[in-house]
Amino acid sequence: MTFSPGLPNFSSDYQEGAHQRVLDALVATNMEQTSGYGTDAHCARARDLIRAACEAPDADVYFLVGGTQTNATVIDAILLPWQGVIAPNTGHINMHEAGIVERGGHKILDVPALDGKINAADVERICSAWEGDGARDHMIAPALVYISQPTEYGTLYTRRELEGLSRVCRARGLKLFVDGARLAYALASPANDVTLADLARLTDVFYIGGTKCGALFGEAVVIPNSGSIRQFVTQMKQHGALLAKGRLLGVQFEALFEDDLYLTIGAPAVQATARIRASLIRAGYVVTMNSPTNLTFVALDQAGHDRLSRKVSYGIWETLPDGRLLARLGTSWATLEQAVAAFEEALA
Amino acid sequence: MTFSPGLPNFSSDYQEGAHQRVLDALVATNMEQTSGYGTDAHCARARDLIRAACEAPDADVYFLVGGTQTNATVIDAILLPWQGVIAPNTGHINMHEAGIVERGGHKILDVPALDGKINAADVERICSAWEGDGARDHMIAPALVYISQPTEYGTLYTRRELEGLSRVCRARGLKLFVDGARLAYALASPANDVTLADLARLTDVFYIGGTKCGALFGEAVVIPNSGSIRQFVTQMKQHGALLAKGRLLGVQFEALFEDDLYLTIGAPAVQATARIRASLIRAGYVVTMNSPTNLTFVALDQAGHDRLSRKVSYGIWETLPDGRLLARLGTSWATLEQAVAAFEEALA
Amino acid sequence: MTFSPGLPNFSSDYQEGAHQRVLDALVATNMEQTSGYGTDAHCARARDLIRAACEAPDADVYFLVGGTQTNATVIDAILLPWQGVIAPNTGHINMHEAGIVERGGHKILDVPALDGKINAADVERICSAWEGDGARDHMIAPALVYISQPTEYGTLYTRRELEGLSRVCRARGLKLFVDGARLAYALASPANDVTLADLARLTDVFYIGGTKCGALFGEAVVIPNSGSIRQFVTQMKQHGALLAKGRLLGVQFEALFEDDLYLTIGAPAVQATARIRASLIRAGYVVTMNSPTNLTFVALDQAGHDRLSRKVSYGIWETLPDGRLLARLGTSWATLEQAVAAFEEALA
Amino acid sequence: MTFSPGLPNFSSDYQEGAHQRVLDALVATNMEQTSGYGTDAHCARARDLIRAACEAPDADVYFLVGGTQTNATVIDAILLPWQGVIAPNTGHINMHEAGIVERGGHKILDVPALDGKINAADVERICSAWEGDGARDHMIAPALVYISQPTEYGTLYTRRELEGLSRVCRARGLKLFVDGARLAYALASPANDVTLADLARLTDVFYIGGTKCGALFGEAVVIPNSGSIRQFVTQMKQHGALLAKGRLLGVQFEALFEDDLYLTIGAPAVQATARIRASLIRAGYVVTMNSPTNLTFVALDQAGHDRLSRKVSYGIWETLPDGRLLARLGTSWATLEQAVAAFEEALA
Repeated sequence: MTFSPGLPNFSSDYQEGAHQRVLDALVATNMEQTSGYGTDAHCARARDLIRAACEAPDADVYFLVGGTQTNATVIDAILLPWQGVIAPNTGHINMHEAGIVERGGHKILDVPALDGKINAADVERICSAWEGDGARDHMIAPALVYISQPTEYGTLYTRRELEGLSRVCRARGLKLFVDGARLAYALASPANDVTLADLARLTDVFYIGGTKCGALFGEAVVIPNSGSIRQFVTQMKQHGALLAKGRLLGVQFEALFEDDLYLTIGAPAVQATARIRASLIRAGYVVTMNSPTNLTFVALDQAGHDRLSRKVSYGIWETLPDGRLLARLGTSWATLEQAVAAFEEALA
Repeated sequence: MTFSPGLPNFSSDYQEGAHQRVLDALVATNMEQTSGYGTDAHCARARDLIRAACEAPDADVYFLVGGTQTNATVIDAILLPWQGVIAPNTGHINMHEAGIVERGGHKILDVPALDGKINAADVERICSAWEGDGARDHMIAPALVYISQPTEYGTLYTRRELEGLSRVCRARGLKLFVDGARLAYALASPANDVTLADLARLTDVFYIGGTKCGALFGEAVVIPNSGSIRQFVTQMKQHGALLAKGRLLGVQFEALFEDDLYLTIGAPAVQATARIRASLIRAGYVVTMNSPTNLTFVALDQAGHDRLSRKVSYGIWETLPDGRLLARLGTSWATLEQAVAAFEEALA
Repeated sequence: MTFSPGLPNFSSDYQEGAHQRVLDALVATNMEQTSGYGTDAHCARARDLIRAACEAPDADVYFLVGGTQTNATVIDAILLPWQGVIAPNTGHINMHEAGIVERGGHKILDVPALDGKINAADVERICSAWEGDGARDHMIAPALVYISQPTEYGTLYTRRELEGLSRVCRARGLKLFVDGARLAYALASPANDVTLADLARLTDVFYIGGTKCGALFGEAVVIPNSGSIRQFVTQMKQHGALLAKGRLLGVQFEALFEDDLYLTIGAPAVQATARIRASLIRAGYVVTMNSPTNLTFVALDQAGHDRLSRKVSYGIWETLPDGRLLARLGTSWATLEQAVAAFEEALA
Repeated sequence: MTFSPGLPNFSSDYQEGAHQRVLDALVATNMEQTSGYGTDAHCARARDLIRAACEAPDADVYFLVGGTQTNATVIDAILLPWQGVIAPNTGHINMHEAGIVERGGHKILDVPALDGKINAADVERICSAWEGDGARDHMIAPALVYISQPTEYGTLYTRRELEGLSRVCRARGLKLFVDGARLAYALASPANDVTLADLARLTDVFYIGGTKCGALFGEAVVIPNSGSIRQFVTQMKQHGALLAKGRLLGVQFEALFEDDLYLTIGAPAVQATARIRASLIRAGYVVTMNSPTNLTFVALDQAGHDRLSRKVSYGIWETLPDGRLLARLGTSWATLEQAVAAFEEALA
């Protein structure tokens, strides 16, 4: 990460605390006495608000603290020991979660991703290969598909693509899990046509990210088909993912879903990213990916990196095969108009 | 748990949010931009304050979110696959953590506890039995001792007892780990003679509880001998225990260790518990354990339970072998004088 | 273990190779070319012979190499992550299998055993305690009962006791698993009233021990309700328990179940043990347990141990709470009449 | 697998039982009484013979039952939880071991292999990438390299290549592990220049395959630097890999290393494979890989498969990206001259 005091800072989308309405709710409820572990009235109400927003009145909703924890808990709760999870090779579980899926005992069946995405044909191919292999009893069986919306590259699955994935999963008996750590930035993007109700209709489990989308921390797992994952609270506990003061999660998601705040909370970030992208292109930088959400990726040679890093703080996502650096600029609900304007001016 | 609106509520010590100074710090820093995962300046300063309070200038300090998570991460980071952890049969890892230690692959070598405590002779006996067993290659080797200060029953290890445990551990090559989820209530008890510096001197790793001691959430792991646990951050990540906005933990522990707040934050709870205990004894209830901290245990037959539960909200800890219920009343930094007074009056 | 050349040697029941008929079969088939991993004709025929002997025509039958491996594979294949296995505290999985169950991620819910046995009431009590505990979501759920027939102490469950265990398991939704590592010695005991067909009728899975009962190695897992454990071959592979030359297991179990050899192979051992026990009692030794199979346990003070160990080689099973040694003398299908006679003479 | 009675059968190298000298030794020792778990005199002598053959007088030698089990036990014994194993993407642990490495909690860092091999530069690149990654604390650290000699494709590492791998491993602090499941076929190949002593000198651990090289079953793990893997017996037990009648392994390896039988036992297979390969090429088949050991790979379209499968039994290894089948023909110590001659005639 590059960071210089005084520069506009787009190094990630989790640099600040919480949206003011979330923070206010935490302060207002601070001295309430509630029972623990998510059994309180705030959690109950947050669950109801989320069920309504997802048009999934019977869904099970659980609150966890962070994304990696949520991915591991959900994957471990779904897979049997002889089953594996299909995921894009660029997926977060495959890259920067310290092997938590393998540590949980499961193999990731990774698929080369295009712009961070995989498709129904990929899943079909893996399932057919396994079923057709004479040695399949010596191999891990595909049983779950993990994708992110938006992806780690800020790209979006269309509703049609998601329907295709859902169809092949149901035909093949696989489950479909959508990591929505940055879901607010999908929902706020003009390019998006996938609603919360679509996710509830098309997936077996997904989560609504709080940490990167206005909360201090927290992810809301939605299981549309109630009861389809058994004893999830115990499995949360086994993952160290059951917060003692669970009401902190309830209070935050209550605030995020009050008046549909979550549906629009990402809009400033999406607009800021569009301006940032335009500035970079105007200045001759190589913007890669079609990312209509809150992330911008720029391929930089060393000179470009030297130049750009004097004007803005950003992160280095990876080194490209050709040796260039892939820089990542992220915005969030907290991104200030002044920072974007300063950036535009610096690049002009 | 019994709970009736309007009654004094001592059902646990994690019913409220955060101490006012902690909350104020979170609000004051909310829009700061910091790097993630505990690499920020608040975490750095909180580490320094904790090192100073522990008189352990070289200690490694890490911040995790909750107690079960911390226990699992530390235990898994210390034990090799063929090693196990000695713990009191009443220890939290053995009772109410959903088998997280076993799920991590490790056997708990449990020891019958007296008032929640085990002693040096217990450890010596287990080590000798293993070493003297001709089949020890077919058995798990003792390698770590887990205890809590205060214990799940609110009791305290004396400095002398802790020195005994430390001595046998060092002689036998075992590590000593102290779970301090409620450590503030030990530090504030007149009966306590174990300081933070003693813990740093006598243990290999311990943690300073935040969740139950004034923070919204958070536990600070202290490893006095720097570097003795390798790659701990990666192992936190593998346990879903590396908070993205790590600065939330830094900010809270900064507030807790500013002006030694942590050393006195538990005092109201300890005083309230002394009054609660005295009231119960006066009213003829059977108070068990000598718990000079923030928990009170009462053995109740059904009639006693019916009577007491009309006057106060509390938790049922377990059913005793003779069929009676063991009720637990807990106080905290947030316990109000009015609640204690109302309780005294109700029992008078 | 004590061992002196020239003395009768009863130190265990796996000191020799294979029964002559098993060895002959291995030699006779040595240069046959067969497919691997248990897909050959010998395995197929052995399965049929076992199904017939168990009066379980639809049973799934799998061959594994050793007992610890079989226990781990079966237990891991049955338990979900939030479930545990009830077992006697003296059970082999709890004592001398190096924590393999915990390493597989599961907690053993141990029950104090009487003469190596547990009963229906124990299981009922554990299930009720779990169901009635308000914190049961923070606890491992009982889901499987593990017992041995005969037990580690050579004792036997009666059919009535087994029916009781089976009934409570089915009522509570638990599975029942019987470790039959020494099953031939139960089947050959006059005191036994539990047949292979009873085991198939009353359990969910059991295994027929080969290693200690006439084979070079090998255990036959019987799952009476076909298909009730899915993808077991893959799970064997994941446990390193799928023998490449699987036909070696098929050939051996074919020989063991040809002409019902297995039902009588243990008879010499049972008779030898009766004579050994009688000799010991006559000589004034304290024989503990009522073990009508192939094991004899003797409680020895140091003088007794010095005296007895000059006359026979045996194993030390454990040190009793009062400091005495518990010696174990084992016989097998291979025990020679001369050895027993020599022992009788030495003790006379 | 194709298989027709009467055809020459090259479908694998584990179709028969044991070499006559191994079988004779098992028969001759059948009624000996020995202690269990590898503590007997046959194991002791086999260890000495292996140490001598490897010119590694201090090496630790352990006997396990099968290859997958051995891979898992060694890898789990070496890796700490935050570490992973570099392996060719075609390596056996990555393909047909049912995810046993992941089930053990470890991530495989796979490398595209050329003819089944990886090289020092691959290892260097992975280590550098990890060390240079700002997010490396969120990633699995490379700590072990796993290769096979010969590889799954029958190809060989040269001494020079192995020295290169050894050098980079030692420079980077990684361990080097060689899977020698088919090692006898390397040692008997004229193309081979890597001796047992080279393996002992250049690796941290390797194993000498018995199952595919003349034994009924069994693999001998050699750890040249004694004590460098602690408590390995317990870890074998935890993997269900500690054979009760351990002497069966000792007896077999004694026979295999008596008069250096192991060094030449593979010669008939290597010669047979050379003839098979020549016949196939003459008949116009596309033989891929340069496999100077006991495996032959043929790329077949459907017509070719139909034609060849009428003349010989073989296995299908995989489907190539272009849709052709990759057939595998294997020979072994047990391959009969008549079978090779019949094959040559059929193809002529």
